[in-house]
Amino acid sequence: MPHQERPGGFARASAVRCLSDGRYAAELADGWDILGAMNGGYQLSIVARALADETGREPITVTGHFLAPGRPGGVQIATSMVKQGSRFSTADATLEQGGKVLVAALGTFGAFEPGSEVMLQQAEPPDLPGIDDCVRLAHDPAVRMPPAFMDRIDLRLHPEDAGFASGRPTGRAHMRGWFQLLGGESIGPLAVIVAADCLPPTTFNAGLPIAWTPTLELTVHVRAEPAPGPLRLDFATRFVSHGRLEVDGLIWDQRDRMVAQSRQIALVPRPPA
Amino acid sequence: MPHQERPGGFARASAVRCLSDGRYAAELADGWDILGAMNGGYQLSIVARALADETGREPITVTGHFLAPGRPGGVQIATSMVKQGSRFSTADATLEQGGKVLVAALGTFGAFEPGSEVMLQQAEPPDLPGIDDCVRLAHDPAVRMPPAFMDRIDLRLHPEDAGFASGRPTGRAHMRGWFQLLGGESIGPLAVIVAADCLPPTTFNAGLPIAWTPTLELTVHVRAEPAPGPLRLDFATRFVSHGRLEVDGLIWDQRDRMVAQSRQIALVPRPPA
Repeated sequence: MPHQERPGGFARASAVRCLSDGRYAAELADGWDILGAMNGGYQLSIVARALADETGREPITVTGHFLAPGRPGGVQIATSMVKQGSRFSTADATLEQGGKVLVAALGTFGAFEPGSEVMLQQAEPPDLPGIDDCVRLAHDPAVRMPPAFMDRIDLRLHPEDAGFASGRPTGRAHMRGWFQLLGGESIGPLAVIVAADCLPPTTFNAGLPIAWTPTLELTVHVRAEPAPGPLRLDFATRFVSHGRLEVDGLIWDQRDRMVAQSRQIALVPRPPA
Repeated sequence: MPHQERPGGFARASAVRCLSDGRYAAELADGWDILGAMNGGYQLSIVARALADETGREPITVTGHFLAPGRPGGVQIATSMVKQGSRFSTADATLEQGGKVLVAALGTFGAFEPGSEVMLQQAEPPDLPGIDDCVRLAHDPAVRMPPAFMDRIDLRLHPEDAGFASGRPTGRAHMRGWFQLLGGESIGPLAVIVAADCLPPTTFNAGLPIAWTPTLELTVHVRAEPAPGPLRLDFATRFVSHGRLEVDGLIWDQRDRMVAQSRQIALVPRPPA
């Protein structure tokens, strides 16, 4: 069964309403945008909510391709079941607004295995100062940066990784921080998809002349249901090459379990001619 | 324009024939299987070939979900265009055999950017002995292992990583090797998708009691057109947890360029009750 959430800002902003024939209606909420374009992880979480409802299962691996920027307002999600199996369901979906596809998605849904063991773990959770000693990037309406989206979640950056905002990048394409929903809203597998795309671009810390990195595709593997409490995010880029870059994310819960692994591929905008 | 291949064993084994309405016919060739189930990367390369034909573009990011084992024989690929843009095309597809979907796929296709620079690179190609000093795993029909698939490609493992086959795993979930097609067939972006799923399971070297790891989903980002010559593969697993594991791959060409990055999520089979 899909994760039971207490109602909260994310649950409301990502709510879907079942229409018929696998179609759902939803509303892209005000403020979940980056300079006017809806956040990709937020949009993908709405698609995943529709697919979780349609399959009656939890997101295990979900891929979204981002085709056009979303704006606040109504959207429709058209889901289509590819296979409803005994253990997994695979389905695809599009998120459409005004007749235009914003997101094309494909996912496999199933159950988490709470009793199962960790047989191999070759990484550790990031070593973060306490939440109150990390840096919250609050939205500044005057300059529109940090984006309004930062007021919809509670993201606290590692102080070492937050210097880019005041012109002191670390020189490493790496971002670490704490992720919470506002007002103590519990973080289920769908909110994990938001966490997978909520950090400032890793390139902001790399000292590269790249302002903006539009996401082509984001894949999130949710490995376990997060334990209650804030998540720790550890995101890095190893390759900015041939016009593209990847962002690899690890998401850890309060029980020091790696609960999700994500990768996106984004475009390096061409310099103005 | 899609990569121009000289005809060869892979080109023949992955050929598609356009029918109508975005449908293609293909033949899963004998011998591209692992103990009777078709190799996932091989099947995804066929789907990607149909999508490359349909979009007239090269694979940039392709995701496949594996729903049922493929057998030698005829298949149909049903493609559906989501968006044909000025720079990228996004389309989905299913690969079906006998009325059953084997693979559901979603991809974005576009052009490589040959002139563009490497702005950041945080890893190096694996340090491999020369091809002739690496270990070819030849198929042994008597015990069916290594699988027949190993005779359809030319894979040479780093000697340090090949000991698992004689009961001496390294203890690290890591596999490195050289990849070529047979008879000097050139390696284009579609063959890269085969390279992304051709190594023995990384867990064979981890000393874990896991025999078989069926792939749920594989995503390949092709970052550049490979230079002529063999590729170097560097594949590792960091997490075997909660019933699943990932395999992360880096593929390097003769010009020391990282030409593809892949990730798959696979199941850790439950021990027999």
